[in-house]
Formats: sequence, C-alpha cells, structure tokens
Amino acid sequence: MTIPAAATDRRPHTGLFITLEGGDGVGKTTQSALLEEWLTGIGRTVVRTREPGGTEVGVLVRDIVLHHRGDIAPRAEALLYAADRAHHIATVVRPALARGEVVIQDRYLDSSVAYQGEGRQLDADEIRGLSLWAAAGLLPDLTVLLDLDPRVARRRLDADDKPFDRLESEQEDFHARVRAHFLAIADSEPERFLVLDASRPADQLAQEIRDRVEALAAAPGNVGTRG
Amino acid sequence: MTIPAAATDRRPHTGLFITLEGGDGVGKTTQSALLEEWLTGIGRTVVRTREPGGTEVGVLVRDIVLHHRGDIAPRAEALLYAADRAHHIATVVRPALARGEVVIQDRYLDSSVAYQGEGRQLDADEIRGLSLWAAAGLLPDLTVLLDLDPRVARRRLDADDKPFDRLESEQEDFHARVRAHFLAIADSEPERFLVLDASRPADQLAQEIRDRVEALAAAPGNVGTRG
Repeated sequence: MTIPAAATDRRPHTGLFITLEGGDGVGKTTQSALLEEWLTGIGRTVVRTREPGGTEVGVLVRDIVLHHRGDIAPRAEALLYAADRAHHIATVVRPALARGEVVIQDRYLDSSVAYQGEGRQLDADEIRGLSLWAAAGLLPDLTVLLDLDPRVARRRLDADDKPFDRLESEQEDFHARVRAHFLAIADSEPERFLVLDASRPADQLAQEIRDRVEALAAAPGNVGTRG
Repeated sequence: MTIPAAATDRRPHTGLFITLEGGDGVGKTTQSALLEEWLTGIGRTVVRTREPGGTEVGVLVRDIVLHHRGDIAPRAEALLYAADRAHHIATVVRPALARGEVVIQDRYLDSSVAYQGEGRQLDADEIRGLSLWAAAGLLPDLTVLLDLDPRVARRRLDADDKPFDRLESEQEDFHARVRAHFLAIADSEPERFLVLDASRPADQLAQEIRDRVEALAAAPGNVGTRG
C-alpha cells in the first residue's frame, strides 16, 4: 500500500513562491526582511510566513513538537510537521499565490527532508513524499539555501542569547549532517535553488537574491516581479 | 513521488490486538469494558486504549482536531490523526503486545478510512496508506464492527445528553455514508472482522465477541488467550 502523492505543482499560480532554507542562525530572518523590503518597494504585495507555526493550527502543532516533555515517536513528529504544512499551504500560501502575491517563507519541504530524513533516521524519500502529499504537490519557484558551518551559526545564536529548543540542543554532528543534506538536495535541483555562502555580508547576499528573483521574473513563461 | 508504506505487519508479537469500530453511540465502550472484564478474569493482562487521544501527545492532537474554531484543511486533519496514531502505536500498543498483553482499542485504521476517506472526500486508499505508514504496518488480529443505524445511535447519544463534537454535529447523511464504508471494509477483510448487529442486547454481543476471541486463540500459529 502506498500513498500516491500528487504530481508536483509548480507555477500553477500568478504569484511567486520563495523559500529560505538552512540551519538555525544562518540569517534567514534577516534575508527575508531585506527581500520583503525590496519587493514592497517595487510595488509587490508580500506575505512573509514560516513553517512550522505559520497558522494558528501550526502554532499548536509547533508547541507539541518543540515543547512536549517526553519523546515523540519519529513518525509522529514527521506527521505533525506535515499537518502544519498541509494547513498552512491550503489556507495561507495558495490563496496568496492565487491573488498574485509574493510569498516569502522561512523553511519548507527541504527542511523536513534535511532534518527529519537525515537527523531522525527516517527515509528521506518517504519524508519528501509525505510533505508533497501534505502540500498537494506545491514546490517553490525559488529556494535560497543559506549555507554556513554549524559552529559559526551556533556562535551567532550564542551571541544573541536565544534559548535553544529541542533541535538546537542536539549534537553538533547532527547539524553537520543536516548541512550536508541541504547541499545535496540543492545539487539535485539546481534550477530551483540559489546556494549562498552565508558567512558573507548580509547586503551582498541580499543583492544576489534580488538578482535571482529578477532573473526569474524575466524568464519566458514566468510572472515574477513587476516593478 | 510516493510514500512506500511498510508492508502490513500482522502477528509479529505474542499479544493480541483487538480493535472496536463503528459510529458514535453504537456501544464500543460497553463492549470494551465487558471484554476486558472477561479477559482479566481468565488471567490476561489487558491494556484498554483509544484513538485519538490514547497518549499525552494524542490528547493535544485531539484538542486541535475537535476544538479548533476555524476550519482545518482536510489533509491537515488526516495528518494530525495519523500523528496521533504513530505515537500511540509506537509508545503504547507495540510495547504492550511485545509483553504478551491484550490491547483493546476504541477506533483505529478503519475509522480513519471510513470517516476521513468517505466523509471528508479524501481518497480512501491514500488515508489507508497514510495510516499504515504511521503505524509501520500494524494491523489488528481482530476488529469488531458494531453496526447500527445512525439514527438509533443518535437517539442513544441524545438520551445520554452528551455534548456533540465537530463530527457529531455533521449531517445524518454523512453518518449513513460512514456506516456503509465500515461495512464495505469489513466485507473486504472477512478474516479480520467480526460484524455484529449492535441493536441486539449487550450481553449477547459480548458473548459473540468472546467466542471469536477464543476461536482466534485456538487457531494454529496463534497465541490468543490462555485461561
């Protein structure tokens, strides 16, 4: 018995779906904010969102996954993240894309595959299939991978004095495997991914992201940005 | 991309896994209690449990599904129930079966297929595949389907003055389709199912269930009850 996931469903809409990926502390929030500022400045309507936790249901799911005292069975954790995704994509992302807006999302499909598939020892193809079933096949138009040595990212987080959640308290070696998995995913889908060295200055990274978004807009058949 | 669900995984254990299925108000709680009393009397250790809500994680999931004020996307609801199942099977049911105990469970796989697959217009095969993935393939040794006209069941619930949750407040027609779906599932797996007319007296139903459990115990290769 298998779950026949929906075929991937790229660009069925007039909006633009951009995701940011990478470990904690690589600068996803900063780059999301800079991209939003630029897009808004050229007249686009932007929806900034995140997984997990982008909806009220998602916040409840996130609370269970991150703050439950006991262990959560690995398949249960994967299914909770997928539930958050299903609700978020159906009620937030698809409606915005249908209105022609730009959705900038902190973490999506690739985080599930990298963290759960690599870190939690579940099969990465199963996790990808589960995520795509949840999202009824929706893939981003562009995924920005902010790549950074986890030890450097950890020092940034320490400097911010942020409390660690369950994933953050796991071993350094786990984060190194997640990083390698992100890079492998990006390698396998070069058209969708922009991989950036996140140790570089934020303004340079922001410029490269803007260039890629503009190129995407200029490609035949694409809608992208309209200044 | 598909999710390759685990092969079904029947009787890998020394215990006995019995599920009770049927709509609300058909008498699952009463029959679970009578079966437990009998099994305990002949020296078996019994674990009575339920889905959704059989674990602490499950209670939280159940709260989201049943009491969230807005609509939950259908795929999200299916994934939340599957998450509850994954955690419950991994942390409650499998350990009990491995200890040789009898697990009596109120609702399982077949409720998901009947309610979500029929009622919520998701594909029943997808729901079954999702459930089996969640449970890593575990099927019950025996499933008792208590079959009853939903209008009769509703009158029983009204008499108890129980508050209705979200599913209970849906249309009568929905419950009629769920009933038909339960019967169709039972038809397709006669070896696993015992279908009983739940309008009959509780003590007669209890006796037929006991007979079936004893027959299961007597079958070659099975462990079942030991008096």
